Amino acid sequence: MAFKFPFRGGSRAVNGATYSDKGVPRARLPVMDEAGGASVEQVEFIEAMARWTSSIWIVTAEEGGVRYGRTVTAMMPLAPQPPTLLVSIMRDALLAEVIERTEGFSLSMLAAGQAEVADAFAGKVPPPQRFERGDWTQWPSGRPRLGQASVALDCRLSGVIDTESHLVFSGTITCTALTEDYAPLLWGARSYRQVSDD
Amino acid sequence: MAFKFPFRGGSRAVNGATYSDKGVPRARLPVMDEAGGASVEQVEFIEAMARWTSSIWIVTAEEGGVRYGRTVTAMMPLAPQPPTLLVSIMRDALLAEVIERTEGFSLSMLAAGQAEVADAFAGKVPPPQRFERGDWTQWPSGRPRLGQASVALDCRLSGVIDTESHLVFSGTITCTALTEDYAPLLWGARSYRQVSDD
Repeated sequence: MAFKFPFRGGSRAVNGATYSDKGVPRARLPVMDEAGGASVEQVEFIEAMARWTSSIWIVTAEEGGVRYGRTVTAMMPLAPQPPTLLVSIMRDALLAEVIERTEGFSLSMLAAGQAEVADAFAGKVPPPQRFERGDWTQWPSGRPRLGQASVALDCRLSGVIDTESHLVFSGTITCTALTEDYAPLLWGARSYRQVSDD
Repeated sequence: MAFKFPFRGGSRAVNGATYSDKGVPRARLPVMDEAGGASVEQVEFIEAMARWTSSIWIVTAEEGGVRYGRTVTAMMPLAPQPPTLLVSIMRDALLAEVIERTEGFSLSMLAAGQAEVADAFAGKVPPPQRFERGDWTQWPSGRPRLGQASVALDCRLSGVIDTESHLVFSGTITCTALTEDYAPLLWGARSYRQVSDD
């Protein structure tokens, strides 16, 4: 794969770094380039990572009135100041393109009872029908917001890390909404899970 | 903060990118540089991220016979080929320095019943005594490995993303070990959690 798109909108280079027209930095981390070095087999990685248990997010974006979204677990908080998180999207996904062009994305962390939404955005429902699952409204930015989500966030894009296979987006949070209850939907060992009462 | 350490060992620049002497790429993503743009208050970020529920990892490294470790939830899988994950460590932590210098780290995902280990490496126990909690052995690399961990992984460093406040390390997995049972220890809403049986 080549790095064809320093930025899918316009971009400029400043002191050797690449920035979008609006000043979002983009770094290349060619993790996948290096062919050398031992590693475990792919199946071992998949088995190990299947044990990892975490909240489930729907990552969404909007462009020209069209909404895009995918189910994702690969999210991590980065820093509280400014309030920033990272989320990883496969480079070839249309969602990744739209996030780069519109320089923003929104996230909805699913609550227990929203497994149907997770299924839909994981691919069980074709893209045009996905937003029929769940109670979707929108943020002032126009980006999608899921009702009854345990946490809903709107983010402006503050950085892109291009690892060749994936784009890791850094988002600075501009809006948050939380439900009253703590009852997250989790994914672990290839099943939906909930936290135990005790 | 300045980017004082392109690499804490030796480094060289090739076509505008920075690499360690052994060829590990390092990218700068100055997420924290940009002062402009609206964002939520820090407290809102903390409240929202507290809802995020996930497995707990002990990230460890070793240098000259001395072991270092911290409790971390900020881990995400990156790609299966080569098998790679990302983990975020505060830039000023001694552990981050050791990972950069030794170009490797190991991870242990805690099982239910290992909350004492999580507490110790989260700061309840001073660094010299931390490895007295839990049944620690070592990988062939010399890096620490926790017995009875739900998943134990050894990684060579394959990239560093410098976001100014944090270093996000990309690790390519060289060894894995899994326990028989799926019984992860989770952290969510400021408490240890387990998955429910159903």
